[in-house]
Amino acid sequence: MGHGSLIDVGIVSINSYGGIGLANLVDAHPQMRLAAVAGHSSAGKTLRQLFPAWGGADLPVLEDLPPLDLVFSALPHGAAARTLAPLARAGARVVDLSADFRLRDAETYRHWYGHAHPAPDLLPRAVYGLTETARDRIAAATLVAVPGCYPTATGLGLAPLLAAGLLEPGGNIIVDAKSGVSGAGRTLKTESLFGEANESVSAYGLDGHRHLPEIAQTAATLSPDGATPPITFVPHLVPMTRGILATMYARPTEGLSATGLRALYRDYYRRGLCVRVSDTPPSTKWTARTNLCVVHPTVDERTGLLVIVSCIDNLVKGAAGQAVQDANLMLGLPEETGLPLRADWP
Amino acid sequence: MGHGSLIDVGIVSINSYGGIGLANLVDAHPQMRLAAVAGHSSAGKTLRQLFPAWGGADLPVLEDLPPLDLVFSALPHGAAARTLAPLARAGARVVDLSADFRLRDAETYRHWYGHAHPAPDLLPRAVYGLTETARDRIAAATLVAVPGCYPTATGLGLAPLLAAGLLEPGGNIIVDAKSGVSGAGRTLKTESLFGEANESVSAYGLDGHRHLPEIAQTAATLSPDGATPPITFVPHLVPMTRGILATMYARPTEGLSATGLRALYRDYYRRGLCVRVSDTPPSTKWTARTNLCVVHPTVDERTGLLVIVSCIDNLVKGAAGQAVQDANLMLGLPEETGLPLRADWP
Amino acid sequence: MGHGSLIDVGIVSINSYGGIGLANLVDAHPQMRLAAVAGHSSAGKTLRQLFPAWGGADLPVLEDLPPLDLVFSALPHGAAARTLAPLARAGARVVDLSADFRLRDAETYRHWYGHAHPAPDLLPRAVYGLTETARDRIAAATLVAVPGCYPTATGLGLAPLLAAGLLEPGGNIIVDAKSGVSGAGRTLKTESLFGEANESVSAYGLDGHRHLPEIAQTAATLSPDGATPPITFVPHLVPMTRGILATMYARPTEGLSATGLRALYRDYYRRGLCVRVSDTPPSTKWTARTNLCVVHPTVDERTGLLVIVSCIDNLVKGAAGQAVQDANLMLGLPEETGLPLRADWP
Amino acid sequence: MGHGSLIDVGIVSINSYGGIGLANLVDAHPQMRLAAVAGHSSAGKTLRQLFPAWGGADLPVLEDLPPLDLVFSALPHGAAARTLAPLARAGARVVDLSADFRLRDAETYRHWYGHAHPAPDLLPRAVYGLTETARDRIAAATLVAVPGCYPTATGLGLAPLLAAGLLEPGGNIIVDAKSGVSGAGRTLKTESLFGEANESVSAYGLDGHRHLPEIAQTAATLSPDGATPPITFVPHLVPMTRGILATMYARPTEGLSATGLRALYRDYYRRGLCVRVSDTPPSTKWTARTNLCVVHPTVDERTGLLVIVSCIDNLVKGAAGQAVQDANLMLGLPEETGLPLRADWP
Repeated sequence: MGHGSLIDVGIVSINSYGGIGLANLVDAHPQMRLAAVAGHSSAGKTLRQLFPAWGGADLPVLEDLPPLDLVFSALPHGAAARTLAPLARAGARVVDLSADFRLRDAETYRHWYGHAHPAPDLLPRAVYGLTETARDRIAAATLVAVPGCYPTATGLGLAPLLAAGLLEPGGNIIVDAKSGVSGAGRTLKTESLFGEANESVSAYGLDGHRHLPEIAQTAATLSPDGATPPITFVPHLVPMTRGILATMYARPTEGLSATGLRALYRDYYRRGLCVRVSDTPPSTKWTARTNLCVVHPTVDERTGLLVIVSCIDNLVKGAAGQAVQDANLMLGLPEETGLPLRADWP
Repeated sequence: MGHGSLIDVGIVSINSYGGIGLANLVDAHPQMRLAAVAGHSSAGKTLRQLFPAWGGADLPVLEDLPPLDLVFSALPHGAAARTLAPLARAGARVVDLSADFRLRDAETYRHWYGHAHPAPDLLPRAVYGLTETARDRIAAATLVAVPGCYPTATGLGLAPLLAAGLLEPGGNIIVDAKSGVSGAGRTLKTESLFGEANESVSAYGLDGHRHLPEIAQTAATLSPDGATPPITFVPHLVPMTRGILATMYARPTEGLSATGLRALYRDYYRRGLCVRVSDTPPSTKWTARTNLCVVHPTVDERTGLLVIVSCIDNLVKGAAGQAVQDANLMLGLPEETGLPLRADWP
Repeated sequence: MGHGSLIDVGIVSINSYGGIGLANLVDAHPQMRLAAVAGHSSAGKTLRQLFPAWGGADLPVLEDLPPLDLVFSALPHGAAARTLAPLARAGARVVDLSADFRLRDAETYRHWYGHAHPAPDLLPRAVYGLTETARDRIAAATLVAVPGCYPTATGLGLAPLLAAGLLEPGGNIIVDAKSGVSGAGRTLKTESLFGEANESVSAYGLDGHRHLPEIAQTAATLSPDGATPPITFVPHLVPMTRGILATMYARPTEGLSATGLRALYRDYYRRGLCVRVSDTPPSTKWTARTNLCVVHPTVDERTGLLVIVSCIDNLVKGAAGQAVQDANLMLGLPEETGLPLRADWP
Repeated sequence: MGHGSLIDVGIVSINSYGGIGLANLVDAHPQMRLAAVAGHSSAGKTLRQLFPAWGGADLPVLEDLPPLDLVFSALPHGAAARTLAPLARAGARVVDLSADFRLRDAETYRHWYGHAHPAPDLLPRAVYGLTETARDRIAAATLVAVPGCYPTATGLGLAPLLAAGLLEPGGNIIVDAKSGVSGAGRTLKTESLFGEANESVSAYGLDGHRHLPEIAQTAATLSPDGATPPITFVPHLVPMTRGILATMYARPTEGLSATGLRALYRDYYRRGLCVRVSDTPPSTKWTARTNLCVVHPTVDERTGLLVIVSCIDNLVKGAAGQAVQDANLMLGLPEETGLPLRADWP
């Protein structure tokens, strides 16, 4: 990739919401070119056969990608590490949407994902791409693990508090998160059918959701003392296509005013345009189809508990958008390049 | 009302979701007759003009009800007490969906509703109709205040724990509740428009929701020591027509197993058919258009926190259905008489 | 089944929307008992494992049904005829939700379904169960084919006109139908996923939908001259769980007034409670979870064209409900026995 | 507005879906600057108070606009003509979303809108802005009437056939259109409440919808002989926020193949990127939040009838997007400037 030329980008596992989301963002990106797409089960078809609404050039879906400037992967965990390891070892820039390179500890990975990590040698090199908390490390990385959708909403909601050491040591953090159905992907599951998901809300993962260790690792990373606070994480399924709203409850070390909280948050997020601190509680629609995270931190005056509301579009800031934001940093571009920051209404 | 004859029932404020819900249940009730309906702004029209889908006899909407065996009211707070007070003082059986007779303390009412209570003399007589917690008092009452939708889901979710004194004294109870849009009623509001509410989740009432004092009063009533625990209550709006799912977080006095918890709950709810204790987390669809409350109590093994998921149809067990359940007890009928307990699928 | 006793009923292919719909209706039916349920892929599980919301007794799912008074089948076409043929030949009462016994002509069946009819010997005995148009034949039948959801809405919308010979001979009838997503069943398909179906309307089946020959056969059956009119049928997928609204356009033989039309319709449907003729255009919500069909016939005064709007719940009057209605007639019961006719609101 | 500078744009009636849609498009437009917004009932507030999700600069809402390069109006009919007439007479560039300048004949306007036209002197100057059918006239205009949402979907679906004179003279055209709820605007109406519109489809306007004369005028304008064909137009309300899908039925003069049809359509729409002719039936989601119209013309082989499926986003190509497309032509810019043409998925 030379001066003035476009960066050639490929996408693996195109037949997924992560894949098509990446394709749309790359196709709209002023500095990137969608050079090739791949997918195991869909190889031989074209991008428009998989997604008739696709508006860009109708690329063939390949079995494997050729060498390119940067590769995005929307493969599921396990397959991602196996497929990306050779590329990463060869020094290619890789941005991975799966869980494979998110957890620093291979044992924790084995515990939650039920199999040995396919490429533990790469874990020390991988950078956890929660953009606003790790810009410099991402800019220097060649292998970035894009955080999960829940950990993104949660991590950005808690980061300023954790970094300032304002949470009661050992106090339980509660994360009650609500996600649209696209969070379950394009995979065929009974519970993702319209008839089953529509007109219903449910809690799930009460025995432990795989995003919990990721949230815990983020908390430990951000805390000045590196301690892992106890976290109760309960995700819920909500009848909408896109969006996550996480409501977080935590006890502060000292009395904090809502005004003081928001000032703290605004200072923490003063760089960059993708996190907006709101004085009023947001709805996920404020962030739909954008790379925005809107955070509303407040205090329950009756009990002194902190209540943090954080929302994102799970498929943009919670997946493909943050992937592009991280890639922008890796490529030396302004982090917002090519990313939608404007929500339509309604 | 004589032996073998039907109970003549009237409904005030028929042009509301509470009103039409009551009308459908009364019309289907084997021991009740829908004798008259009233509504201030809709007087002069007929029931079918207000609700073209109405399938029963097409009654005229009156300005005021004639004397009847029992009156249900779906009036808003303030208007309810003003309208129902003369009836209640005259000894009529009254079941009120509004907040007017829910709080025992007139000062608390004034604080949350912004005006003096219109009929404080009636408060000592009013019984709070959270059926499964107060059957005998309801059976003996002539004035019943039907709990709000959130307090119903919350109260039934917490009652067995509170009654058994199993919550850490002074520990903060967190109630994170998700409601369908019909909870806001048939009143015209921008945020209830399809375009605004669809494809979005939002938190609201972070400065204090009027259902909070009701939840607190229920908790104090059920606790052996009568103490009011600190409660953080955050309601959320979810894009579905009906349903509430409340997720509650609390710290127990001692280590409780999930199995032990469920046994405790099953024992507490062994009388009656309207509360079902589930071993798996429910979805609100399990309760849609029924008078059921499904509760799933569990333990977060990592942190020891109790997590209770409770769901209802906000317009049935959370309003008109519980009103009929309470009226059944007042009339000496089995509490489930005429109430739907079977959820369709999907 | 003796005097005073209940009719023992079985359901084949319980793990489907037809199956669970039948189970709910049979369980609520005052004269039926849900004796057994079967399902090939779900044998060995229980009914509640398939449908956690199931509120009746938790039956085991069998591989095959034992001998019973009456069998409902929700099997897909092909499998239905193969499974039901032995039962039907043995004289059992069978009510089939599939297409296998709907078309009188085995060649037409082969053309549309792509394989030879598995039991052509039974076709002469099978009665097409569009209840309001064939009560006497259904009452005398032992094998009833429940019409498809689209043909039910369409057939009931057109029957009075066809029977009265009021449509222009040879004139094209246009049926533009809109269905909720549950019409595609509980089978896993990408286009039935929440994310794909939500916030979208599409036309499909433009090359010919399998319900077309059924609609044509109904039209020919009802017409005094037995002629098959040209019919253009375009189904559409709409983002809701349940409901079909069919809008039909046809040219009359003579000038008809809207008032005259409605009188004609009311006379045609004077027996029975399941079809309601409305003076105003209905919405599918008027029929949700009921066995009602609401029809609004009118005239486009500018062009003289007839416009007929007909709506049903596709899973009740369009499937399980009409199956029970037909079974009621087969059993000598009033046709509405055990069927919901009251729509909740909203 | 000079070389290199931006065009100063104002929007009247900002507190509407048309208004905020325009604001978002103007704010993203590379050649326009959102200079001022006005609104009668919302004057004194700010744009973000009306729409908390608004991401641009937070402008005050004025009572009236100052002089600007171009004015967009989202006022309702009647008010639009009264407010815009002075501007238009003074020579300003005006693009109006209302019906006031769509119908060429003031008497037809009076018939359908129930009052005399407020500014009949301007009708001869007004250009009907169905972009793809009138590019040259729009480019030369100073007053453009943006077509209604239904007439846009319908007009673009029929234009190639009408222009080629391929429809049977005098043959009835049937337009069965399905619209999302945002088509009713942000005005408070019971039927636009989530609870009423969700999970329901209904037909309306069967006595004559105001978009009918507009569709008829477009048909006459496009036909070589200027004749107005008989048109039956039945709109339907569908439970989604955005989108219109119009299914049109018409009889051709001669046998046309589907392939021939599509070639004809592709040729008609060869200029410009906003209309896409599809070989497969589209869903409205293909066009969501874009200025695209996707058209699928086909032939019902059994009856010879033409079936045309056309879909748009009612708030973009059906309102604000087409307004900007027309404004681009008025300003000498490429018509797609600043307009979204890429649909996200899902």
